[in-house]
Amino acid sequence: MLKGFRFAAVEAAIKKPGRLDLALIFSEEPAQVAAVFTTNKVKAAPVLLDEELVKGGTVRAVVVNSGNANACTGAPGMADAIETTRILGNGLMIPMEQILVASTGVIGVPLPMERLQAALPRLAAAVGEASLADVAAAIMTTDTFPKIESRQAEAGGVPYTIAGVAKGAGMIRPDMATMLAFIVTDAAVEPQLLQQLFREANELSFNSITVDGDMSTNDTALILANGAAGNPLLLPGTPEAAQFAAALSDLLLSLAKLIVRDGEGATKFVTITVKGAVSAAEAKQAAMAVANSSLVKTAFFGQDANWGRIFAAVGSAGIHVEQLRTELFFDDVQMVSNGLFVGGDAEARGTAVLQKSDFAVLVDLHLGNGEATVYTSDLSYDYVKINADYRT
Amino acid sequence: MLKGFRFAAVEAAIKKPGRLDLALIFSEEPAQVAAVFTTNKVKAAPVLLDEELVKGGTVRAVVVNSGNANACTGAPGMADAIETTRILGNGLMIPMEQILVASTGVIGVPLPMERLQAALPRLAAAVGEASLADVAAAIMTTDTFPKIESRQAEAGGVPYTIAGVAKGAGMIRPDMATMLAFIVTDAAVEPQLLQQLFREANELSFNSITVDGDMSTNDTALILANGAAGNPLLLPGTPEAAQFAAALSDLLLSLAKLIVRDGEGATKFVTITVKGAVSAAEAKQAAMAVANSSLVKTAFFGQDANWGRIFAAVGSAGIHVEQLRTELFFDDVQMVSNGLFVGGDAEARGTAVLQKSDFAVLVDLHLGNGEATVYTSDLSYDYVKINADYRT
Repeated sequence: MLKGFRFAAVEAAIKKPGRLDLALIFSEEPAQVAAVFTTNKVKAAPVLLDEELVKGGTVRAVVVNSGNANACTGAPGMADAIETTRILGNGLMIPMEQILVASTGVIGVPLPMERLQAALPRLAAAVGEASLADVAAAIMTTDTFPKIESRQAEAGGVPYTIAGVAKGAGMIRPDMATMLAFIVTDAAVEPQLLQQLFREANELSFNSITVDGDMSTNDTALILANGAAGNPLLLPGTPEAAQFAAALSDLLLSLAKLIVRDGEGATKFVTITVKGAVSAAEAKQAAMAVANSSLVKTAFFGQDANWGRIFAAVGSAGIHVEQLRTELFFDDVQMVSNGLFVGGDAEARGTAVLQKSDFAVLVDLHLGNGEATVYTSDLSYDYVKINADYRT
Repeated sequence: MLKGFRFAAVEAAIKKPGRLDLALIFSEEPAQVAAVFTTNKVKAAPVLLDEELVKGGTVRAVVVNSGNANACTGAPGMADAIETTRILGNGLMIPMEQILVASTGVIGVPLPMERLQAALPRLAAAVGEASLADVAAAIMTTDTFPKIESRQAEAGGVPYTIAGVAKGAGMIRPDMATMLAFIVTDAAVEPQLLQQLFREANELSFNSITVDGDMSTNDTALILANGAAGNPLLLPGTPEAAQFAAALSDLLLSLAKLIVRDGEGATKFVTITVKGAVSAAEAKQAAMAVANSSLVKTAFFGQDANWGRIFAAVGSAGIHVEQLRTELFFDDVQMVSNGLFVGGDAEARGTAVLQKSDFAVLVDLHLGNGEATVYTSDLSYDYVKINADYRT
């Protein structure tokens, strides 16, 4: 049972009627915070604001709206984000500097502040009336299902919980893209350790997924650790810290995979591993080149065992490749050996793999020890439909 | 009238029956050659072969098959490419080292050599029986129309012709992708000048287009200059060379635009210009980031004036951007001023621009003098359909 956090979610009429679109995560005590933000040069107002606020080291609350990204909205957008924290700070009776803001939705349209001014006091008054699952629902945009995960562990005999919600759908790629993830834990964690573990877990989860290769203006992943579980403070280099790290990584990876499974128009969940690269960085570069290739992704959608497109994508990734050493597998079916199609019944068996909804691609470059795994979806008619009609 | 070149095109049954799929460009005398090849690390056999052959400086012929890329085919694939030149050299009674080879089509499948062994003597015997337009038809894969252009100019009172064919459709991006272009001219051009002008013209044409951001294993652009027009040799730094350069650039740009217009599933032709960047290289990087964004391209398909996605793509391009100085136009409709939506009727007027089949996007970063223009298409249902079903 997660201690010391309370939640709220209301309708602010930013999205269509009948849908939650404003959510609050509230910690009863100041919580240590660690964060990862988009690396896009065009950052939304809430990202710019949060980047400053997290320097304080602790926060009390996170307010999230969906339906409007408050991005490309300039100084008025920043004023709107700040005004959001002011109203909410009044309602919650906490300093406005202790409230982080996140927004997701359409870019370039001012926040509907009249509606927010009406809804924020209701949100503050509703603290504790919602669950984390309601928060997961309220932050959805084109997501088709809410994404929530939790893990239990203990330290010094004291149980603690890590729970998280995320939203994704489109514009997902490394360095995060329009992805929001909010993790809460009642564990007490030494601040620098929290930062480090959160960054590491991000790299292998939210920074290892891609739906369409687009990077958002709003990506934000936050963790709040309020220590309400009462465990002995988790310190670097201890078995307890390693256990926390494992649980956190597992939770983030599960959320990341849910984002891919719910990728816009996705009909396939594909795990792409490149091994034998000269470095882990080159392996990841190659895996991402495969995962982001429109030709590869349409072949996945068409259930076409077109390994040549995967080769072409690896070859264009700007990494070391020796074609005649390279192997390729679809699940356990070897398609290519020493750079050449193996023949026989590989085409039929490979096609059978691609007909599954969940399969793996392995490329072994046989050049070194670098390895990386990324997760992606296919490129379908529905991806086009969803994104062609997004604002209508 | 182009002098000293003859053409042939036959059916070799590599593609479906009734379609030309084997073509020959033949020069009556050795022609100076200049070439640009794919930068993909996974190069098809004919690319590897041609890279060696063009070092000789002159060639007599180019043989092209469509329907099979002879890529990822290893040593047997190279043997097949060489065997192709041997058979054709016998038929044409020219050294096999003077014959370049190009292939386009499916990757990873061996060339059907029995069919080629039967067809190549027919091809050699048919020299002069086809036109360059037949060559344009024979090199098509998913292209919906043949691409052919020609220009006339003169030097020292002697008229000469530059003519060219290209194929594209999918897998088009800078550094060329599955694109083949064969240019022939009867002008006499100093060899180094020919190399330089061809590279420069490529940079602003075939290297400035993108359909899907994928890079092919087979991209090849060649120019053959045989001097049959009898003009005084074109030398660097002369007005005649400048006139040739202008005609060549214009021809390549026209072919490149035809490739984009025929992009797989394309319903829009979009000219994307980024100006005011700190350098031309950054301008091109940003323009390409916009042109390759799946979210931007689906918005074009949906005729959605979603300029925020263009901002997000520019911001993710890894270049210098100051959001609050940036302007954005759809044709002559200003959408964004100082980083902010201009409001008023811009949404309606911008939407009207996107409803056209041919429009321009201008992003002005107001940071420097760097400028670049690239050409792209939208991302439609049909792109997905064509590429999901490509091999079936």
